Amino acid sequence: MKRTKRTCSVSLLLGALFMALSVSGQKKDRPNIIVFFVDDLGWQDVSVPFYKEVTPLNKKFNTPFLENLAKEGTKFTDAYATPVCTPSRVSMLTGLNAARHKVTNWTHPVANRPTDNPDDMLTPPEWNINGMSPIPNIPKTVYATPFPQLLKEAGYFTIHIGKAHWGSAGTPAASPLNLGFMVNVGGHSAGHPQSYYAKDNYGNVPGKASLQAVPDLMEYHGGETFLTEALTLEAIKAIAEPIRRKEPFFLNFSNYAVHVPIQPDPRFVQKYLDQGMDPVEAGYASLVEGFDKSIGDVVQFLKDKGVYDNTVIIFLSDNGGLSLQPMRTGPNHTQNLPLRAGKGSIYEGGIRIPLLIKNANSHQARTVASPVIIEDLFPTILELAQVKSYSTVQQQIDGKSIVPLIDGHSDKAWDSRALIWHIPNKWTVPDGPGINFFSAVRQGDFKLVYDMKKARLELYDLKNDIGETTDLAGKNQKKVKELSELLTQNLKRMDAQLPHYISDGKQVLYPNEVN
Amino acid sequence: MKRTKRTCSVSLLLGALFMALSVSGQKKDRPNIIVFFVDDLGWQDVSVPFYKEVTPLNKKFNTPFLENLAKEGTKFTDAYATPVCTPSRVSMLTGLNAARHKVTNWTHPVANRPTDNPDDMLTPPEWNINGMSPIPNIPKTVYATPFPQLLKEAGYFTIHIGKAHWGSAGTPAASPLNLGFMVNVGGHSAGHPQSYYAKDNYGNVPGKASLQAVPDLMEYHGGETFLTEALTLEAIKAIAEPIRRKEPFFLNFSNYAVHVPIQPDPRFVQKYLDQGMDPVEAGYASLVEGFDKSIGDVVQFLKDKGVYDNTVIIFLSDNGGLSLQPMRTGPNHTQNLPLRAGKGSIYEGGIRIPLLIKNANSHQARTVASPVIIEDLFPTILELAQVKSYSTVQQQIDGKSIVPLIDGHSDKAWDSRALIWHIPNKWTVPDGPGINFFSAVRQGDFKLVYDMKKARLELYDLKNDIGETTDLAGKNQKKVKELSELLTQNLKRMDAQLPHYISDGKQVLYPNEVN
Repeated sequence: MKRTKRTCSVSLLLGALFMALSVSGQKKDRPNIIVFFVDDLGWQDVSVPFYKEVTPLNKKFNTPFLENLAKEGTKFTDAYATPVCTPSRVSMLTGLNAARHKVTNWTHPVANRPTDNPDDMLTPPEWNINGMSPIPNIPKTVYATPFPQLLKEAGYFTIHIGKAHWGSAGTPAASPLNLGFMVNVGGHSAGHPQSYYAKDNYGNVPGKASLQAVPDLMEYHGGETFLTEALTLEAIKAIAEPIRRKEPFFLNFSNYAVHVPIQPDPRFVQKYLDQGMDPVEAGYASLVEGFDKSIGDVVQFLKDKGVYDNTVIIFLSDNGGLSLQPMRTGPNHTQNLPLRAGKGSIYEGGIRIPLLIKNANSHQARTVASPVIIEDLFPTILELAQVKSYSTVQQQIDGKSIVPLIDGHSDKAWDSRALIWHIPNKWTVPDGPGINFFSAVRQGDFKLVYDMKKARLELYDLKNDIGETTDLAGKNQKKVKELSELLTQNLKRMDAQLPHYISDGKQVLYPNEVN
Repeated sequence: MKRTKRTCSVSLLLGALFMALSVSGQKKDRPNIIVFFVDDLGWQDVSVPFYKEVTPLNKKFNTPFLENLAKEGTKFTDAYATPVCTPSRVSMLTGLNAARHKVTNWTHPVANRPTDNPDDMLTPPEWNINGMSPIPNIPKTVYATPFPQLLKEAGYFTIHIGKAHWGSAGTPAASPLNLGFMVNVGGHSAGHPQSYYAKDNYGNVPGKASLQAVPDLMEYHGGETFLTEALTLEAIKAIAEPIRRKEPFFLNFSNYAVHVPIQPDPRFVQKYLDQGMDPVEAGYASLVEGFDKSIGDVVQFLKDKGVYDNTVIIFLSDNGGLSLQPMRTGPNHTQNLPLRAGKGSIYEGGIRIPLLIKNANSHQARTVASPVIIEDLFPTILELAQVKSYSTVQQQIDGKSIVPLIDGHSDKAWDSRALIWHIPNKWTVPDGPGINFFSAVRQGDFKLVYDMKKARLELYDLKNDIGETTDLAGKNQKKVKELSELLTQNLKRMDAQLPHYISDGKQVLYPNEVN
């Protein structure tokens, strides 16, 4: 999709029109849009099955309010994000694939601090370690127009609640107020909360506060309100104003849950302990049920105010579920079964996310298997908001509007689309499975995985082997060749960065150069 | 002025009308309203003279942008606040005199922590140590409707920037978002900044942050932007949105300057040092010039956007200038000359403040000598915003609209009005001058001061003795009797709290009981 500066005059005209509308009366049919963005939530970490069957993991969790939404919305079984937080968040806000925006690892809360671990073989490229930026010439950022800015200019009342993590402190994107949001509660440059507990002031204890102390929310300090609940109360308070004004709103409600530290939500943890669940996993399940309660409370408020039907609700995670000991319990990389591995990995456990969209004025349950990816939300949300023409500083948007899929229209084109992942970075000290220096492409049922350190290509048939247990690369050289060309072509098209060998300073091969 | 719940039905009707207007189009003639609220700024701490002549102190400071405003606005020579921060801020937001709202000392950043120093004679009463509250039944708060809430309901876009300090953490008023503000940047429960410097992250350094670390603003962290400048940029960014929407806005721009710590504003300090000024006072003068630059920058933005003429600008301080060593230089209590004493004192140096109001569509300079007090801003701002009927949970508003004075209309009634101060508290360890356990009344030119610890009444003729150097109590017993009755009557009317003697638990005498 091409949205270049050439649309500027049309955009200005439309802007003026929207301005006129915002003065003379709101377009009544523009829906409210809410994104429930859950941090580090795995594809299996809800009681709604996103797989073809209900799994033991689905049964472990209780998300009744998400179940209700699923009865009225479109469930995407093959939705994807990137393997870690900031790249996904930047992709959503900019519409760009991570290979293009080059924020390919999580960003440090403070500017100019790379977060890669040292590697004995490869040096990561000069990626955008400071995240995105809404203004040009900020070092080590990708300059892009965030879609909330376009929504605001089109008359939407734009609100961010919770985790932000779009840019480092010392750069503009550290504040959601610079990304098109009119209201921000709780969002800053850090990627997780210091504490979920109000008795700890969510971390804001003099002398003990870290960079992860959660901002705002001081009215709850010293009390009993769990972070998830505090953010829910703030979200409801914030949307009350546009509802009162009869203005359409966009709410990005980005819970800090279920990211570590896994601190039990006291509202829900006991029943999981009573079931004999391990304390860590009981805590995790309580964080899951906590964000589900967020959804329930916000939905109830929308219903009470009579605006539920005219509200689009989008539910998703930013990457796969964490699958590492000791933060989680059980053998490493089993926490997202039947998917392989977890957060940080290019295997399905790291990138496949639950995505559910309830459209406005729609009560039909659908399941869509077409592969979609997080940057698709940029054009999708703008289309849902009826922002039909707009101008961005990014020369093109990689995402594709999935509104036709939500509306039940599909065609073969979706299945031949290539989805790209690219992580020329070192996330954790130990490598693998699928973690550190990987690229991948999915087209149709096939997925090619490129391990840069091993200079190896793997091929999986996701339709028959969702767990990526059987590498078909040896058996199906033709498909490997085809997909390695496709991946290479896309990486070059997006000017993707490759890591370098420490030994000789040469960059690693493109996938189509690997034998 | 009586605004009781009986006005509710009318208010609801008008609310519905405003709602209709906000949907079908804004009332174009409603002005924007900006309050430039400066912390701890003395009556003499600007280059605009609020006294009958230009003083050496006026000449020490440079506030050219305030001078420009003074050419188009009404200067109040006899405007008052309370002697310390929170009582003044609560009076402004609630329209209540401090004797009535009972937030008679500054509030601790954390709930339920009294801030009084120990005294060997008196125990302060059970004042509202947690500040104000917009919802009922919050312990140790005054439950009141803040005027920004009424403005918001009337269609104003309401913004708070900078210091808040209306309530302690753990209570609702810790967040300006609970006080009718739609946007808050930098406001919380603390009364001063940990640091004015971006290189210190305004205090937000892991392990070193105090309760005074300034919230938000992380895009400036690690940089060079002085706090005053950062808040100014945020204020301009925030008002851009209502201007774009063509909605009237209310901006409460409450600079942390010029409160301690007196850290030099590097943009301005050198010239004061070059003048041979003491470093502390040069730093203070640079903080003064910094907030003046705030005014200039915001005014320029209003002019650039073509909305300056339709904007009311209110400039004031929250109490007198600090007059204590070692935070200030020079002998104690000489920093507000010709006024006696400074912050914390019931003498003029502690309570007389600069107040300047530029009305919308007015370019006439006026000077008004009628005594006015900070709670007057509540009905004044609502009248300027054309909010003609409203309902508050406070049973009456002590403040009186000073719009007639701004418009050049006055009458004798203003001069016979009694202004009341009441501080049954221990602010600093050493008592006096006028500090700790004092009440006072001003009517016309006379001011009666009640020193509770000494059970003594003092009388001053402010017209002829603005410095309160000559106690006339012995000479004019009749006026003492008259004013002590007036003060007592007002204290009883407002249910003012009195301290108790430690020795026998009895409360101190009312002023009219003192011989």
